[in-house]
Amino acid sequence: MPKTRQQNQNSLYLSPVITIVIISILSPLSLAAQPSKFRRAPRFVGKLPHLTEPPQRQQRQQQQQYRYETRYFEQRLDHFSFADLPTFSQRYLINTDHWVGPNRLGPIFLYCGNEGDIEWFAVNSGFVWDIAPRFGAMLVFPEHRYYGESMPYGSTEVAYQNATTLSYLTAEQALADFAVFITNLKQNLSAEASPVVLFGGSYGGMLAAWMRLKYPHIAIGALASSAPILQFEDIVPPETFYNIVSSDFKRESASCFNTIKESWGELVSVGQKENGLLELTKTFHLCRELNSTEDLADWLESAYSYLAMVDYPYPSDFMMPLPGYPIREVCKKIDNAPDATSILERIFEGVSVYYNYTGNVDCFQLDDDPHGLDGWNWQACTEMVMPMSSSRDKSMFPAYDYNYSSFKEECWNDFNVIPRPRWITTEFGGHVWELF
Amino acid sequence: MPKTRQQNQNSLYLSPVITIVIISILSPLSLAAQPSKFRRAPRFVGKLPHLTEPPQRQQRQQQQQYRYETRYFEQRLDHFSFADLPTFSQRYLINTDHWVGPNRLGPIFLYCGNEGDIEWFAVNSGFVWDIAPRFGAMLVFPEHRYYGESMPYGSTEVAYQNATTLSYLTAEQALADFAVFITNLKQNLSAEASPVVLFGGSYGGMLAAWMRLKYPHIAIGALASSAPILQFEDIVPPETFYNIVSSDFKRESASCFNTIKESWGELVSVGQKENGLLELTKTFHLCRELNSTEDLADWLESAYSYLAMVDYPYPSDFMMPLPGYPIREVCKKIDNAPDATSILERIFEGVSVYYNYTGNVDCFQLDDDPHGLDGWNWQACTEMVMPMSSSRDKSMFPAYDYNYSSFKEECWNDFNVIPRPRWITTEFGGHVWELF
Repeated sequence: MPKTRQQNQNSLYLSPVITIVIISILSPLSLAAQPSKFRRAPRFVGKLPHLTEPPQRQQRQQQQQYRYETRYFEQRLDHFSFADLPTFSQRYLINTDHWVGPNRLGPIFLYCGNEGDIEWFAVNSGFVWDIAPRFGAMLVFPEHRYYGESMPYGSTEVAYQNATTLSYLTAEQALADFAVFITNLKQNLSAEASPVVLFGGSYGGMLAAWMRLKYPHIAIGALASSAPILQFEDIVPPETFYNIVSSDFKRESASCFNTIKESWGELVSVGQKENGLLELTKTFHLCRELNSTEDLADWLESAYSYLAMVDYPYPSDFMMPLPGYPIREVCKKIDNAPDATSILERIFEGVSVYYNYTGNVDCFQLDDDPHGLDGWNWQACTEMVMPMSSSRDKSMFPAYDYNYSSFKEECWNDFNVIPRPRWITTEFGGHVWELF
Repeated sequence: MPKTRQQNQNSLYLSPVITIVIISILSPLSLAAQPSKFRRAPRFVGKLPHLTEPPQRQQRQQQQQYRYETRYFEQRLDHFSFADLPTFSQRYLINTDHWVGPNRLGPIFLYCGNEGDIEWFAVNSGFVWDIAPRFGAMLVFPEHRYYGESMPYGSTEVAYQNATTLSYLTAEQALADFAVFITNLKQNLSAEASPVVLFGGSYGGMLAAWMRLKYPHIAIGALASSAPILQFEDIVPPETFYNIVSSDFKRESASCFNTIKESWGELVSVGQKENGLLELTKTFHLCRELNSTEDLADWLESAYSYLAMVDYPYPSDFMMPLPGYPIREVCKKIDNAPDATSILERIFEGVSVYYNYTGNVDCFQLDDDPHGLDGWNWQACTEMVMPMSSSRDKSMFPAYDYNYSSFKEECWNDFNVIPRPRWITTEFGGHVWELF
């Protein structure tokens, strides 16, 4: 029942959350929710596997299919003040192969670049490439500021140096970048009358929805895929995300769900034994000895969350090379191991589908860098404050109650910044979503 | 025919310009267009007569009618970045006398503070006070940042020091101030469900219209009075404003229009004579000897423009104490002087209706301060770039062709800032105004 399953997968975020137009043909939820740690507050990851380096292999494979020119556009660092700040160069990709031109009002499909290298998103957004010929559309992929090559202050090092240099990494500024960019592009092409349609997935989908709301004179429509624009304040219950991820697993197999749910306690009890961390290091084939059980838990939780986001009915290679229906494959490994297999060995077999589907990995790097100054963590600590809990019953993740105070403290420690948890709903709405 | 005349007055800016909802019950166009000088480019004045000091006399008179509490609300200086900037205290006036409260969904009427002291606007916006009882509405008047008491950096001196301190004086920031303010107020009053309706005149009307566009989740409607939201780029012909002012005079009397139109040449030729400036000083009863003919021309042009903006059918005291139909009164003075009266003497008699209706003024201060660092001039030099020309035939003002280059140069000299003439239409639209 591939169709049903695909729809179920889509319901991951879509049912209560989405407005405008939503279907799930774009990139998966790259905006991942990192499940709760044992002691630390959960927060969205954004620390994508290929964040800084687009997968070269994949690019080579797809070069034939996804052809674009790379160009650059000069942007103000702050659109909303006249402070004397350096401009920066925004990268964008453009394909006009199928565009029927301004006289025939050829549309412009604008993919709202999100928290990563734009080339990676462009070659993983097959839908817009597929439909461009049918609509005689131009494709443009402006990159999001502070990601990929679109770096203010000339380099990632300077741009990510501190809260002052990072302070212009906001959604409103990114939307204004898109607005100024597309207005200018249309003028240059004498295509003022060409309609613009926005596309985006996950955070990029939020941008698409918000841009349609804030710039109705610029875009006639938006396709916001898997865009959690209602995951703020108390609009949806904080358990929503992990409940849905968990139900994706439960649907495949109740025993799979239960094994995962039991594994956290097992993890803790093994970790507390003498030489327990060494035992876990061996069980999970880690390259370096484990420092704490939490690091391993993070790594496992990430796998489950990402798996739910990319649970496509066909083989794909967005986050990782994966088979079709990857959750089903994970659960098969967990459920079908020989009877004597321990819970943690089952878990290892399961997540290997995610981390090692090709079978080429000899040992695993947890690569846990919770304080890394990556862009999404900054955004999560400033505007994108999304309360997330893990419920005791419906979630297979360790139980966790969202705690704003500790989140705020963590942000202060990481970035010297105080979050503005009510700003997004003030600026973009959300509470009265019938209004959209 | 008071009704017809009132409607004509309204047409000053309204016919091609206004969207949303427009009627003219609010304050007149405080956003005045300074007519063309002989050599200098014209630009909006904003330098309102009572800008810094609300008229005390008027306030005392109206205290009974307009009662409000004065409160303050802490605002971020930059809503759209996380730069570490000092907050400032936004003043607002509030009246809840007629509010039926949150349970009965009592509406909130929000007057969008514009370029001046909020008390002055509040006591000159009779309409909202008149209708509040009928709607059971609360009235709030948040002051615009950088005006009145709502001064960043603790004082006008520091706030207006240079382009850096002024850089957060923008319309987008002001709208965000209103959004944050009203969201917070409603929460404090448990009045989240109470509808908000925006009101504003002139620049404040632009803010009302733009706020309804950008914050549909916050305001269910806007009454934007005399709001020139289409006076940008080439959306309306640049001659529009002065043509309409001129037609207001022509409608009263063709000879009045002609006398004014002829007076500029007369002014120049007298000014060029030996002792000509002294002669003009005497004719116009100036307190100090005239430095240049332009200064006098500016003063006259301001009077005509403001007269058109406050050509109410009843006596009023917004800009100046004036009779009802003040343009008619001006033209009577110009037309009905004894036959031997010179053109310039007629002009003096005419503008005395504006500058000296009470008859208490012995001599006139031109008070020309074209480089004064007042807020509106900054706004006009940054975002509010409104091209204005004076046509050779339809305008009674000296002919002038708008020249962006010289405007830009003037802004650089005055403020060390480069205007962004396309920004407002990018941010708020305007070209395709059917969309509104």
